[in-house]
Amino acid sequence: MSKQESMPRKMDEKSQDVTIKKVSRRVAALNAQMADGAQFKIGMVGVGSMGSMMSLLFAEHGAEVHFFDPSEENVKSLQEEAKKISAEKKIVHQNDYKELCESLSSGDEPKHFVFSIPHGSIGDKTVDGLEPYLKKGDVIIDCSNEHWQNTERRQKRLDPKGIHYIGCGVSGGYQSARHGPSCSPGGSEEGLKAVMPFLEQIAAKDKKGRACTTAVGPGGSGHYVKMVHNGIEQGMMSVIAEVWFILTTGLQLSYEEVGGIFESWNKSGPLHDCFLVDIGANICRTKNEKGEYVLAQVRDKVVQDVDESEGTGYWTCEQAVEKHVPAATILSAHLFRCASADANRRISIQKSLGGGVKPQPIKVDNKDQFIKDLQMATYICFLMCFAQGLHIVKKMDQQEGWKINYGNLLQLWRGGCIIQADHITDLLQRMYDRDDHDDDDILSNKEVGNELSQNFSSLKNVVLKSIEADMYVPSISQSLEFQKYSSSTELPTQFMEAELDYFGAHMFDLKEGPPGKPQTGEHHFEWKPARGIFDK
Amino acid sequence: MSKQESMPRKMDEKSQDVTIKKVSRRVAALNAQMADGAQFKIGMVGVGSMGSMMSLLFAEHGAEVHFFDPSEENVKSLQEEAKKISAEKKIVHQNDYKELCESLSSGDEPKHFVFSIPHGSIGDKTVDGLEPYLKKGDVIIDCSNEHWQNTERRQKRLDPKGIHYIGCGVSGGYQSARHGPSCSPGGSEEGLKAVMPFLEQIAAKDKKGRACTTAVGPGGSGHYVKMVHNGIEQGMMSVIAEVWFILTTGLQLSYEEVGGIFESWNKSGPLHDCFLVDIGANICRTKNEKGEYVLAQVRDKVVQDVDESEGTGYWTCEQAVEKHVPAATILSAHLFRCASADANRRISIQKSLGGGVKPQPIKVDNKDQFIKDLQMATYICFLMCFAQGLHIVKKMDQQEGWKINYGNLLQLWRGGCIIQADHITDLLQRMYDRDDHDDDDILSNKEVGNELSQNFSSLKNVVLKSIEADMYVPSISQSLEFQKYSSSTELPTQFMEAELDYFGAHMFDLKEGPPGKPQTGEHHFEWKPARGIFDK
Repeated sequence: MSKQESMPRKMDEKSQDVTIKKVSRRVAALNAQMADGAQFKIGMVGVGSMGSMMSLLFAEHGAEVHFFDPSEENVKSLQEEAKKISAEKKIVHQNDYKELCESLSSGDEPKHFVFSIPHGSIGDKTVDGLEPYLKKGDVIIDCSNEHWQNTERRQKRLDPKGIHYIGCGVSGGYQSARHGPSCSPGGSEEGLKAVMPFLEQIAAKDKKGRACTTAVGPGGSGHYVKMVHNGIEQGMMSVIAEVWFILTTGLQLSYEEVGGIFESWNKSGPLHDCFLVDIGANICRTKNEKGEYVLAQVRDKVVQDVDESEGTGYWTCEQAVEKHVPAATILSAHLFRCASADANRRISIQKSLGGGVKPQPIKVDNKDQFIKDLQMATYICFLMCFAQGLHIVKKMDQQEGWKINYGNLLQLWRGGCIIQADHITDLLQRMYDRDDHDDDDILSNKEVGNELSQNFSSLKNVVLKSIEADMYVPSISQSLEFQKYSSSTELPTQFMEAELDYFGAHMFDLKEGPPGKPQTGEHHFEWKPARGIFDK
Repeated sequence: MSKQESMPRKMDEKSQDVTIKKVSRRVAALNAQMADGAQFKIGMVGVGSMGSMMSLLFAEHGAEVHFFDPSEENVKSLQEEAKKISAEKKIVHQNDYKELCESLSSGDEPKHFVFSIPHGSIGDKTVDGLEPYLKKGDVIIDCSNEHWQNTERRQKRLDPKGIHYIGCGVSGGYQSARHGPSCSPGGSEEGLKAVMPFLEQIAAKDKKGRACTTAVGPGGSGHYVKMVHNGIEQGMMSVIAEVWFILTTGLQLSYEEVGGIFESWNKSGPLHDCFLVDIGANICRTKNEKGEYVLAQVRDKVVQDVDESEGTGYWTCEQAVEKHVPAATILSAHLFRCASADANRRISIQKSLGGGVKPQPIKVDNKDQFIKDLQMATYICFLMCFAQGLHIVKKMDQQEGWKINYGNLLQLWRGGCIIQADHITDLLQRMYDRDDHDDDDILSNKEVGNELSQNFSSLKNVVLKSIEADMYVPSISQSLEFQKYSSSTELPTQFMEAELDYFGAHMFDLKEGPPGKPQTGEHHFEWKPARGIFDK
């Protein structure tokens, strides 16, 4: 594949243009280097579902991949896959860290490693294993879903030796890893300079051929942004799952019909080119070899949070809470899936509740109009997930001084990733381009606000009809509440504040005064004087 | 006050009886010691709103209180209060840690300190200041809202020297601190033995005269349980605030009328003797010297989380998330109040949404019936807050091996604390006494389940009518969803799980198989094979 073929010369977005020119130059240089016969080598650590797919991808991009994985099964499986694309000579198994490093060494050239391993202590052990063979200028790109604090700890460990550790979130699942994922790298300036040409080469490309990657910022910013991507993802995924249930159980549509609806939403309108809607359509229609719908056989348990195989979902929620960001859709989605994980517990509670509540068919006068409402509700719930996620990133950005460019950041999410939602990305991109926005809060933007207010009645109608029929709408209904309370100046929290002042002397601000900053109020009323034990 | 007067001899609960006898003996011994003229001295550090009230309380219980506080205002204010009860000779200001310690020293007797200071580094500095003057057997009771990990760190620091550090949550606000708060102490067995007679003496007493304190467990368990108390508190407080808004703005009742309703709820029925309902009634009726309702002047901002003056609320939420506990009511309440804190942000979002949504009067055929629904909805939402909070405690208990006695724990919450709700405590106490419960999950208990299912339609009706009229019901509506999804075996998460398997090969369990543990499933379907960059 020639880079030129997939990257059109004509660009219209000004802010993107400069970046793209730079990218093109760097990619061209890399291509030239490869064409010159200079062998580009990658040391791959971890070839599970994501790592194996990346190995194949790197090989197809011309790299010589040397890999290490302690799992024999993973090794064998990748070797078989490599054979299928006649790349067995370009994807070479190595037995240990020493061999791996020796296979990459060629004179003074720096060695490049890519990690695709579970988060936590395994990464530290991997660095322990590699370190004796590392030298100044070597680069590690950690493409795992690692916690950003682990990333920063390893950066601090390796920086003094001149070894670059880049925390690079990789999104899109294994199909994307195979074809080109969305990549969000963060680390030292020098380290990022070293890896960007490579990442721009292998990353997913959007419709205009632009790479879905950007240098996010210093430290653990790359992994942080990927973490929040997964937080947004869990919000969106809960919304679309709740909608699927409303369509099938509430409106009693067939899987095929729902597949058709999702397909049409993905084609045009505010949910066009939405990854989760797109695969939703496929999932509805997928049959196994016996002709049965696969989806019908899947148990309603989401366990990856509870069994700790994945951390990004709950790390995002912890961050929201720690940073006091009301990411209500994302958190309600998270708790919903956590509750789903323990099916035995649900059975036992169902018993104690005498059978629980059975969902009923939804009664609507105009089914098509209700489906339209569902579409618009899904859209603004998705939009709120983005707003909440970006609010978390912004808070951390301010705290750490990362100076993230949000226009560039959106480019990460234009292709190859799970939260791809082109209409929303376009909307936000326009906002960042116009400079009429408040970075702190995209909900304060006129265009975003318009979308929310215009579709409020659809969202409200969906929630009402769903609750009436005993559907499950934790994330959709919480989005409705979020929209209302975020835009109100007359909240029930007035009463809460009075209660806090009553027993805790927490102080309050006056309604008639200025709105004031979010800090302790200036007024206390002695609602009930404290009494001693001898007082009557 | 003679102990005998306030503690009736006749007891009916078997499990409490033994404890109470022990308490009585210890308290009697302490009283005897005091009567013998042996002066009981307390070194008080921090005399803000809580600390000053506790100083007065201790003095009234016969202790000689020596106190230190760097704030001149706090010192002066306590001295004035002491004069009012003619205790100026029993409440003595000391200028620094050295003086404070010297004033407490009397031969070999151990010194006793009580902290009531802000959480975090101030506690460490206080220990720094005191440590040179501490000796084996001395006791510090940290009555601040401290993070349990800070407590455990200080315990580890002082334990080797034989100095007892007890993390003791104190609840009930400043009125309770003055009259007798709820106390939840945790620490070493020896340390707890040393402080329990004192705590049993000064703690709030329930209706039967039993002290609202118990030795919670080792380490930071006391502060942990108090933290969760505050988590439950924020859930309940959001519910009652939302209900207050429905009554005033939705049903357009006057403050006096709502005060009357809350008063009647507090008198009998499932919300009887509920602290937050009780003070709610008072708040509705409280007028200032000009005859205006104070509540009407309070701005709708709850800032104590955002301005970090209080940590327990968001620490509870972090714990819920870290431990994968779907504490949906508590978290939705927390995010709601966080959103309320920034009034300027809400104004700005209201503008971008073209004015936002205005709440409307609620239309109901039978107002009294709807108010009854509100009462029952409030009750089961409160009950769910307790269930969620106890779920968090249990998870931590299992992790740390604290071996908490939950029957005893409930005694903490029978008086003097914010979450006092006697009907609920009775219900749960019966459950723990009967031994027909699963500690892990009180929702699985038949009696608890009955309460939820019998009142489901009230809760549902409240949510429907409220959403119809554009009320704000983040916690009430999320409780409804929590109740539904916790007791269902047919959730929309089925679709979520399929999506995760589609792009992430996350594996799933089969519907037709056993429910299985909350761990990675055994089935994967290749919904869409991965394609390389050269594939069509």
